Amino acid sequence: MKNNKIQPSILPGFMELLPREQQIFKDIIRKITNVYEKNGFLEMDTPIIEKSEVLLAKSAGETEKQVYRFNRGSNDLSLRFDLTVPFARFSAQYFNELIFPFKRYQIGKVYRGERNQRGRYREFYQFDVDIIGNNKLSINNDALVISMASRAFKAIGLKDYKLQISNRKILSSVLKELEITNTTEVLILIDKYDKIGAAEFESSLIELIGKEKADYINKIININGSNEEILAELKKLDMNSEELKKGIEEIDTVRKMLKLLGVDDNEYTINLKIIRGLDYYTGTVIETFLIGNENYGSICSGGRYDNLAENYTDNILPGVGISIGLTRLFFVLKEIGFLDNYKVEKSIEYLIIPIGDTLEYCVEIYKMLLAKGKYTEIYLEEDKLKKKLNYANKLAIPNVILIGENEVLKREIKIKDMASGEEKVINLL
Amino acid sequence: MKNNKIQPSILPGFMELLPREQQIFKDIIRKITNVYEKNGFLEMDTPIIEKSEVLLAKSAGETEKQVYRFNRGSNDLSLRFDLTVPFARFSAQYFNELIFPFKRYQIGKVYRGERNQRGRYREFYQFDVDIIGNNKLSINNDALVISMASRAFKAIGLKDYKLQISNRKILSSVLKELEITNTTEVLILIDKYDKIGAAEFESSLIELIGKEKADYINKIININGSNEEILAELKKLDMNSEELKKGIEEIDTVRKMLKLLGVDDNEYTINLKIIRGLDYYTGTVIETFLIGNENYGSICSGGRYDNLAENYTDNILPGVGISIGLTRLFFVLKEIGFLDNYKVEKSIEYLIIPIGDTLEYCVEIYKMLLAKGKYTEIYLEEDKLKKKLNYANKLAIPNVILIGENEVLKREIKIKDMASGEEKVINLL
Repeated sequence: MKNNKIQPSILPGFMELLPREQQIFKDIIRKITNVYEKNGFLEMDTPIIEKSEVLLAKSAGETEKQVYRFNRGSNDLSLRFDLTVPFARFSAQYFNELIFPFKRYQIGKVYRGERNQRGRYREFYQFDVDIIGNNKLSINNDALVISMASRAFKAIGLKDYKLQISNRKILSSVLKELEITNTTEVLILIDKYDKIGAAEFESSLIELIGKEKADYINKIININGSNEEILAELKKLDMNSEELKKGIEEIDTVRKMLKLLGVDDNEYTINLKIIRGLDYYTGTVIETFLIGNENYGSICSGGRYDNLAENYTDNILPGVGISIGLTRLFFVLKEIGFLDNYKVEKSIEYLIIPIGDTLEYCVEIYKMLLAKGKYTEIYLEEDKLKKKLNYANKLAIPNVILIGENEVLKREIKIKDMASGEEKVINLL
Repeated sequence: MKNNKIQPSILPGFMELLPREQQIFKDIIRKITNVYEKNGFLEMDTPIIEKSEVLLAKSAGETEKQVYRFNRGSNDLSLRFDLTVPFARFSAQYFNELIFPFKRYQIGKVYRGERNQRGRYREFYQFDVDIIGNNKLSINNDALVISMASRAFKAIGLKDYKLQISNRKILSSVLKELEITNTTEVLILIDKYDKIGAAEFESSLIELIGKEKADYINKIININGSNEEILAELKKLDMNSEELKKGIEEIDTVRKMLKLLGVDDNEYTINLKIIRGLDYYTGTVIETFLIGNENYGSICSGGRYDNLAENYTDNILPGVGISIGLTRLFFVLKEIGFLDNYKVEKSIEYLIIPIGDTLEYCVEIYKMLLAKGKYTEIYLEEDKLKKKLNYANKLAIPNVILIGENEVLKREIKIKDMASGEEKVINLL
């Protein structure tokens, strides 16, 4: 045996959970997966390592710097940094074998060499859901995907969230109508609105495009009221732009479909300040904030894109999707105390404790409970009773079955409710 | 739009499945997970990237060559090549927070730069289940873990498997008693028995240790009969070795406990030729072969070890575990045709097809079915009816609900069984 032990530790920026929290994490995954599968989304799983040439086909400089990239033999490899690029590659590669509209979900780890800071992870789970069509895809899918987010949150018992919905076409057309040329800068600025606050935003915007245009945009992105009222205001905009009309029509259709799908009007706000950075979105865009905890950023984002896989194929694949940053979400839910009373669906219900030479009967009961679908284990170690009961307590196992020789003789099961201390005797004879 | 497309492809040695097969893969994972969780095993999830210093603490040269290792900044990183080393590291690192006996399962991708050949993967899933104790662990756990394998196979409907069980102490003590010094070579040779065949084995063994000793060992490892008979023969061995007695006693206890646990005698064979390479096993060792397809190698292997985490801690953590090479298993199951009739538990049951302007009513039915726990989707695209029905056919959706204006007026649901063609009408009024 060696005396020089290696300090067991993991890399900074990597999340690892103890069993109890891991159970919650798994429970969350299971519940969201259930929502997606019940709605016909099919699982996709792609390699974590891909050819750099394929994975970085389109990436901008900023992403590329964060990528875990290395050589092995003569191969230039990268770890995936999101699930969208692999999805695009997959859709192009197996185009002829896929059935459209193709509804897929994917959960998996992705890698980004982010600056090390609390709550930011270098390895983290993304949980994506997308629908792509071959050449066309109904706008109703945008609402369906948003309803998936709503159902997912409800499934895990999350209530204090607010979806923020916009449509890129609206601002884009307004900027065009105003003959603004530095579109990118303006959009980046609007994207930062909530971070920098109204005052700084206003003065920066004036600097960029002058007071008149700035006032106009500021007015539009700050229209207040119910979703219906905001839409009514937008419809009044005095601009003869087809794109604008299209954008407003789309968001209106989404709103109506959301109502049908059972997404309550107070679950979301139409908010033109939602941009989703410089991503590839072309219509609907979505972010989600925790009410009262908006500072943690969006926990679920996505939108509509015109053509998923243009780097890999001539086939036109329009789609819409959302992504939950699950590792980040878990961190946030822990921070805000949501996990404290989280109820895990699947965990052990019965601990059978043999006292003396009663293992045979214990195993019989164990098999009986398992056959009934119960989550059951037997304590197999020869320890003092106190230690055995401690195991149940520490693992919060609700029921303990103590089997002494007396129980074997009488063919009895004495079930002890660990919370109330109450005992219930069942006779098997 | 670019004209120079990048060929979408993945690296050789990486498995990727189309949706239908992915569903089966997921179903297998789900069913095995269910078995493990019902028996009190807790999920563990560890980073795929770890510090090379930690991950390669003990590795021999052969493993190290296969490891995906790279630098990032000043860090020397490696991708995990199994789930056991991370388990050891984890158990040492969080020792004070774990509850013993600690029963964990872990499923995850691991990486090995194997020579590229059919059915060998460089990225593959392992599915491990282990029980470790603090300082001690009852031999009954060996049987429990073996019963987990049995339950897992049954859960996925696999019948033609045979577990092979041995105990390292038996051969190890016999070699000692025979005063054989080149133990490693002998063990490696026995490990290869089935590959090279009886004749070559015998001559090689004679070369290594001489005819007399070779004959003796050959006789022992080829004892025939039922498990009970093999054990009876072993008990007759005329050697005064405590270790031998211990080994036989252990395997006998395992046999008895397996019987109690409901593992049938014909599910396993006591087979002293099972060695598990030069691994760290010290008692029970297990391999599993598909009957009639033994050439694919073991699909589930494991055993008992004395001290899991000696590289990282002074705490003594004896344990027992088994590992299923899930990606490999899936490949094999596909090869032998097992997947052809595999029934996936969770897949879409109803496709609702709107005909004309009936979306509102369709969504109503969709919500009703979802609320009943049914797997349901609506066809949202404006396509010809034939294309809509094709979608159901291609995805093997068993029931289609066509909603025309007539159905809306009558508040009817007409459910068409796609296999039989039968229609059933339900009236919602």
